[in-house]
Amino acid sequence: MGGDHGPPVVAPAVARAARHGLDARFLLHGDEAALTAAVARLPILQGKVEIRHADRVIAGDEKPAQAMRRGKGTSMWNAIESVRSGEAQACVSAGNTGALMAISKLMLRMIAGMERPAIVANWPTLRGRTAVLDVGANIQCDAARLVEFAIMGAAFHHALNPGGRPTVGLLNVGSEEEKGHEEVRGAHRMLREMSLNLDYHGFVEGDDIAKGTVDVIVTDGFTGNVALKTGEGLARFVRAELRRTFSAGPLARLGALIASAALRRLGERFDPSTINGGPFLGVNGIVVKSHGAADARGFATAIGLAADLARSDFVAQIERNLMQLTAATRDATDESGKEARREGQRS
Amino acid sequence: MGGDHGPPVVAPAVARAARHGLDARFLLHGDEAALTAAVARLPILQGKVEIRHADRVIAGDEKPAQAMRRGKGTSMWNAIESVRSGEAQACVSAGNTGALMAISKLMLRMIAGMERPAIVANWPTLRGRTAVLDVGANIQCDAARLVEFAIMGAAFHHALNPGGRPTVGLLNVGSEEEKGHEEVRGAHRMLREMSLNLDYHGFVEGDDIAKGTVDVIVTDGFTGNVALKTGEGLARFVRAELRRTFSAGPLARLGALIASAALRRLGERFDPSTINGGPFLGVNGIVVKSHGAADARGFATAIGLAADLARSDFVAQIERNLMQLTAATRDATDESGKEARREGQRS
Repeated sequence: MGGDHGPPVVAPAVARAARHGLDARFLLHGDEAALTAAVARLPILQGKVEIRHADRVIAGDEKPAQAMRRGKGTSMWNAIESVRSGEAQACVSAGNTGALMAISKLMLRMIAGMERPAIVANWPTLRGRTAVLDVGANIQCDAARLVEFAIMGAAFHHALNPGGRPTVGLLNVGSEEEKGHEEVRGAHRMLREMSLNLDYHGFVEGDDIAKGTVDVIVTDGFTGNVALKTGEGLARFVRAELRRTFSAGPLARLGALIASAALRRLGERFDPSTINGGPFLGVNGIVVKSHGAADARGFATAIGLAADLARSDFVAQIERNLMQLTAATRDATDESGKEARREGQRS
Repeated sequence: MGGDHGPPVVAPAVARAARHGLDARFLLHGDEAALTAAVARLPILQGKVEIRHADRVIAGDEKPAQAMRRGKGTSMWNAIESVRSGEAQACVSAGNTGALMAISKLMLRMIAGMERPAIVANWPTLRGRTAVLDVGANIQCDAARLVEFAIMGAAFHHALNPGGRPTVGLLNVGSEEEKGHEEVRGAHRMLREMSLNLDYHGFVEGDDIAKGTVDVIVTDGFTGNVALKTGEGLARFVRAELRRTFSAGPLARLGALIASAALRRLGERFDPSTINGGPFLGVNGIVVKSHGAADARGFATAIGLAADLARSDFVAQIERNLMQLTAATRDATDESGKEARREGQRS
């Protein structure tokens, strides 16, 4: 069991999820003694938890290739193996992201046609939640890859919010057709012309994330990662400023005391633990990455997300939609082939 | 005079800047009648303002190429012309960004070796201000371009904060050497190896913007634009949530009333008008772009920034540092040339 904290955070997180009504069985992979001790303190976990001993963990700085070679028998490996074997329906880990992704790919395989998983972040917005992807796995993306993200993001959003076609926007530096680089302009054309199972909204900009303009925002992993971390940094800045503001003098402290219930709710809006959990999309199975430094509340959020996904058929939905994409691409190629032949006859 | 508002915002903004102690003469380019009426209402402007009539404005949706062809005689053109002729030391405009950049390039020319200006944003952070560039002009950037941004950003920061060598970070998705795409890795090597007049800190991530880890953060215009707008969107979200929180019931309203001075200061921290103003770096002259929708306070911030830059020698400093870069590149090329010759002799 990896992450920065291990059993002392994971066991209370599982208890928290159970208390919030999650009816599931939990396999905890890691050091048996530490896990047994942590679980014993939480009566609610009795009968819900099974501990699987693992001698080794994957270190936070281990390279993905190394992790694949030497990972067998580690807690992370065993957790993913339990998804592969069908014993578990989802895996949640706060460990090394690169290793988790590499081992997930190796053992669960990618959905046909996909190369590398995308990580999705579910952002709080003025109007609910917006799924932003990719936020870190795919540094450079061509147009086709961005279209795949649109499909996977729509399936993800639909799994958490059944009913209605998700609206999808493509992140750019302006909303006009000619804005941005070749990759986003190409993806824009493809999304506009293909009939996929989503409602394509067009280009969106950075401020549309917090506005909640669309359900899903698609971008490459470099831009998405920077945007996500910029947002996280700003949220921490807000929390620090709030604390500073309401301890700035006796009047400020009195005001804070009187408005404490409202302030607590405001604090929760900007609490990183309420947005923790990044599923790997495109893998044949459900693997959710938790922030390495997440506390029990944050880890419980990631567990809840994994459970929601496990209850949905989103892996199958991604697969169906990707087939739709393949068909659409083939049709488009056929069309341009016919066009070329017609052109040929004319000349 | 362009932007969303024109004279009714610009004249009060100039008055605000004058009230805050800015001792300068202002040339206002635009519709004479409208400007005269707006200025007449502001006694503080008497004797400080000269109005230059222009019949035409450049429309917000005009293409840069069109603006260059047909721009002569517009208020924007005349304002930049007054910098070119030396009559004004800086130009501030809330008009069409692409047109402003194209006309600035055309009339003021780029500093030798530069191709396109970079726009810099001066972000509030936990530790002061951090200059982030490029935030929109250069969508794709190779390693050398990113190094130019580092040089220009350092000169910009130094102009506003004389004394001390600015620290510079390169925006990436992680701090390890192998992270990111080829362009950032190449720029990282160049910045580490060259001895430029700045203190290179290495890679930084999105959350380092709000932390204020370094004085200057360098990135391509696509990523920088998305990060900036993501931050702006989140700041608006915070303001909306604050309003909602403190009107959520009688206790919350009472608390807000008691803590009102502290809350006002907090609101100012997240007020977009306090970070308005994006100078074009790399142009032979000072041109500052104001947000099109800025109010008088925001426009006054942009005027203040232009004045600070005009008082410094930052255009000359950029030029000196770029010469240093050229020399360093030449030395590096010479070295590898010698290396190759030595290799040749050995074989």
